[in-house]
Amino acid sequence: MEILRSWLIAPANRPSFLRKWHSCVADCYVLDLEDGTPETEKEATRRALPEIVAELKRGGLSGTLYVRTNAPRSPHTPRDLDAVLATDIDGISIPKLGSVEELKPYVCAIEVAEKARPGKRFGIIGGIESANGVLNVTAICAADPHLVAVYFGAEDFATDVGGMRRTRQGLEVLYARSRVVLGAHAARIAAVDHAVLDFRDEEQFREDSEFGRNLGFDGKVCIHPRQAELANLYFAPTPQEIDFSRRLVAAYEDAERRGIGTIAFEGLMVDGPLVKRARGVVAAADRIASRP
Amino acid sequence: MEILRSWLIAPANRPSFLRKWHSCVADCYVLDLEDGTPETEKEATRRALPEIVAELKRGGLSGTLYVRTNAPRSPHTPRDLDAVLATDIDGISIPKLGSVEELKPYVCAIEVAEKARPGKRFGIIGGIESANGVLNVTAICAADPHLVAVYFGAEDFATDVGGMRRTRQGLEVLYARSRVVLGAHAARIAAVDHAVLDFRDEEQFREDSEFGRNLGFDGKVCIHPRQAELANLYFAPTPQEIDFSRRLVAAYEDAERRGIGTIAFEGLMVDGPLVKRARGVVAAADRIASRP
Amino acid sequence: MEILRSWLIAPANRPSFLRKWHSCVADCYVLDLEDGTPETEKEATRRALPEIVAELKRGGLSGTLYVRTNAPRSPHTPRDLDAVLATDIDGISIPKLGSVEELKPYVCAIEVAEKARPGKRFGIIGGIESANGVLNVTAICAADPHLVAVYFGAEDFATDVGGMRRTRQGLEVLYARSRVVLGAHAARIAAVDHAVLDFRDEEQFREDSEFGRNLGFDGKVCIHPRQAELANLYFAPTPQEIDFSRRLVAAYEDAERRGIGTIAFEGLMVDGPLVKRARGVVAAADRIASRP
Repeated sequence: MEILRSWLIAPANRPSFLRKWHSCVADCYVLDLEDGTPETEKEATRRALPEIVAELKRGGLSGTLYVRTNAPRSPHTPRDLDAVLATDIDGISIPKLGSVEELKPYVCAIEVAEKARPGKRFGIIGGIESANGVLNVTAICAADPHLVAVYFGAEDFATDVGGMRRTRQGLEVLYARSRVVLGAHAARIAAVDHAVLDFRDEEQFREDSEFGRNLGFDGKVCIHPRQAELANLYFAPTPQEIDFSRRLVAAYEDAERRGIGTIAFEGLMVDGPLVKRARGVVAAADRIASRP
Repeated sequence: MEILRSWLIAPANRPSFLRKWHSCVADCYVLDLEDGTPETEKEATRRALPEIVAELKRGGLSGTLYVRTNAPRSPHTPRDLDAVLATDIDGISIPKLGSVEELKPYVCAIEVAEKARPGKRFGIIGGIESANGVLNVTAICAADPHLVAVYFGAEDFATDVGGMRRTRQGLEVLYARSRVVLGAHAARIAAVDHAVLDFRDEEQFREDSEFGRNLGFDGKVCIHPRQAELANLYFAPTPQEIDFSRRLVAAYEDAERRGIGTIAFEGLMVDGPLVKRARGVVAAADRIASRP
Repeated sequence: MEILRSWLIAPANRPSFLRKWHSCVADCYVLDLEDGTPETEKEATRRALPEIVAELKRGGLSGTLYVRTNAPRSPHTPRDLDAVLATDIDGISIPKLGSVEELKPYVCAIEVAEKARPGKRFGIIGGIESANGVLNVTAICAADPHLVAVYFGAEDFATDVGGMRRTRQGLEVLYARSRVVLGAHAARIAAVDHAVLDFRDEEQFREDSEFGRNLGFDGKVCIHPRQAELANLYFAPTPQEIDFSRRLVAAYEDAERRGIGTIAFEGLMVDGPLVKRARGVVAAADRIASRP
């Protein structure tokens, strides 16, 4: 599974935002051709895309580079795909993905582009941010091997469902978030949690990241470079977790050598699943530590 | 989508309750032939129905008038439908609707009645209040164009699922409530939230209405006229929301004219979904203000 | 539905644990051949099983006796089934059940064993503790009449979904727990809630039991005899509930005789579902009181 702690998005038509990316720490950078780029700017931005991508790649980035195209039924989408898949990006993000059917034209375009450029492979990160998207998330996640992740867009979801009010605790989207994580992880792809729009409220970002992390999310949509720093921190095992996990694995392996499969460890009755999870924590910490 | 902030139900055999309706403010009034009318009274109440409906309509009501018939497999249901669809009601409510299959006999009866009375159209409000109802809610909501709404019946649901204990916070029905809103709104019909049985506890009614409203519900089952007043208040945009929404839309449209698609507005990073939602808040406020 | 307040599990290869069972109060005892018994001990434990089961049955148990075999794709499973179904156990528990397909080999083995021993009938308690298990739980529960219950394994589930962090309040598994109860009770079988691993923290066991009970669970996985005592207490109606229920039923039946179907009772507006639930509480209390 890809490391996707921080998925940083900015409008593709705002060079002042993009220039900052060279000093950022995100795991994935996303040039937004959809909502972030207004109608009147879409065509010009699309034309500028090869130069934007080339410049970003030249300057060096800490993570992968994606473009968010327009949504499934938008008239912009075919032209977006033509422009985007001719560049050196790592993949596309599809907003408002509502069904397996809607995924198909994007996969087709990618397969054509991959055939034309042997060795090149594009990823897809699907946006689950509508009533239909949440209802169909399990099928969408399992539909195509290009999918490396889905992100949950709480604001678009709340708008599409209609009448929802977003709260700080977020119980109104607990069902949707739970369903997205479950669908993504059942298909063994990553799940990226929604954005916190108040980009100066670091306390809310921390609380919301922790809740998302508890639910199983692998990372967070970030709308500001500072959020990417924080997300990298919150979506990784803590030193305490790593330490606890190493000790638990050692104690369990010791017991196993004595023919014992269930042990009492620091007050907990421990067997298979906790040992497997502890090994997962150690492996995740190692993978993050060994990032280039 | 119909305005259904308050869905006020009372037993069809209790004239003292019904007489008060002329001075009530509900968006929908429901004469209950099911649980509210005991077995021994059902036949007599059915016979009195034409007169009850005529008198209610004559006196004037602030909203639509529905009859809740008996449940899908009840021997009363065919006779209920015969009696009800010969009156001037606006529609029927079906309790304990568990599947698309169970909906069919009601739709059939309505279609026959509509053919016999050209121009007359009956609505259906489905009761989602069983394990099967919650499991099948998405299919039920999309099954027939007569459906204008579904309501979630938490007490019946808890009884059918079995063993549930209802709490003030209501986390035990969060999954079911979320699923009902999602299924209803995916089909673009309204969703009405469960009743608060302690009709004198206005604080609980407020808390529970706010939770339901956050989840996306459009209104609430009311069992007392006072609850309908409160529901009308809680299931409408607040003055603060309307004001915030108008300012947000103005600021965004101003930015758009300058080729900008993402703006910082009062501490929030704002783009498409929030603008769309703000326009929805303004439109909802206007619709409610222009009610007859 | 079986009374399954306490489902007490222990490794099948630890005689010191099993000897204590004769003085325990669990509704169901489970000998664990899966995670609790390490790889190196599985074969020997399987061979010892006839003697272990015979001894436990001879000593007398307060509840039924089950064996948890290995998981669907494990090479141990066919040998487990051969050994287990030749003994006098009451049923098998299947860990990590992910689909109806995975259930089939177990049902086949049971049907063969039942044919060979006329009159003998084995129950199945399925473990829902993976992403697929939770996604498919409704179908699994309805798949075969041998299923008497499912249990939710939160630790295995969190490990399989990946990245989840377990918290004391447990909102990260609310979706999964809700789905398991709904699937089980729609099929009219029992649902057993997850374990509390810190077996000395009785306060957490109480809180978590109450949350599970509110959600509709019928009992709890127990990993210590003391937890079984507590679960028996928490997963039964309280004296207050029984008293309230008796009074409510009496008041309602009195009103019914006067042709009234909705009554105000101690501040609540009461009709069908609450009366049915109150009768259920009284019946559950009677069933528990009359246990041998």
